[in-house]
Amino acid sequence: MTLKPDFSKHDGLIPVIVQSVGNEKVLMLAYMNELAWEKTVETGKAHYWSRSRQRLWVKGEESGHTQLVREILVDCDLDTVLLRVEQLGSAACHTGYESCFYRRYGNNGLEIVGEPMFDPKEVYKK
Amino acid sequence: MTLKPDFSKHDGLIPVIVQSVGNEKVLMLAYMNELAWEKTVETGKAHYWSRSRQRLWVKGEESGHTQLVREILVDCDLDTVLLRVEQLGSAACHTGYESCFYRRYGNNGLEIVGEPMFDPKEVYKK
Repeated sequence: MTLKPDFSKHDGLIPVIVQSVGNEKVLMLAYMNELAWEKTVETGKAHYWSRSRQRLWVKGEESGHTQLVREILVDCDLDTVLLRVEQLGSAACHTGYESCFYRRYGNNGLEIVGEPMFDPKEVYKK
Repeated sequence: MTLKPDFSKHDGLIPVIVQSVGNEKVLMLAYMNELAWEKTVETGKAHYWSRSRQRLWVKGEESGHTQLVREILVDCDLDTVLLRVEQLGSAACHTGYESCFYRRYGNNGLEIVGEPMFDPKEVYKK
């Protein structure tokens, strides 16, 4: 049986859906290359490949909001991963919201439905 | 305020995470172009862009397992969508499992953790 995701397509990157094991909320979407996958499996902490910065990053390296991996699921085509995590610091999004999906689309455009968990200025000191 | 996702990057495609509103399970990952987005909003049924077949498809067109859209959320960068749906026919995956993420990664490779909901041979008649 195949042992792990297939990194041979799409420039060696696979999308990773991140879900909180606590409340089942979808927190974010990120990408992994094979190195990020290996580091994640080895350490139990979520590592991703940043497409904008073109480098490996461990989630929480600046904010301290690490994601502890509780379960790794792969999809039918072996080219997408669902990472079920315990989110330290209660928020995954750099905006301070628990989830990156904090806005709902409706007839009047986008409406904020998430609750802010921290002030980004305090956390990132930028 | 911006009214909808940004289709200007990545060949006009955005990844769409699909989650069941019933049990909060992540069902699948698909892609939308702007036309798929418009059709989804207009009809309330999930439409996607198939990268392998290079065409628009409405989820369930063959199986009858339509996804009724209950909530649309967009991420902080406006380039990923979280579609919260009611999954008709109880399964989203063409393999017959409820979720495409029916296998768990562990020390011994991949282990099936999902329950099959239908027999693909019966549903797709292929």
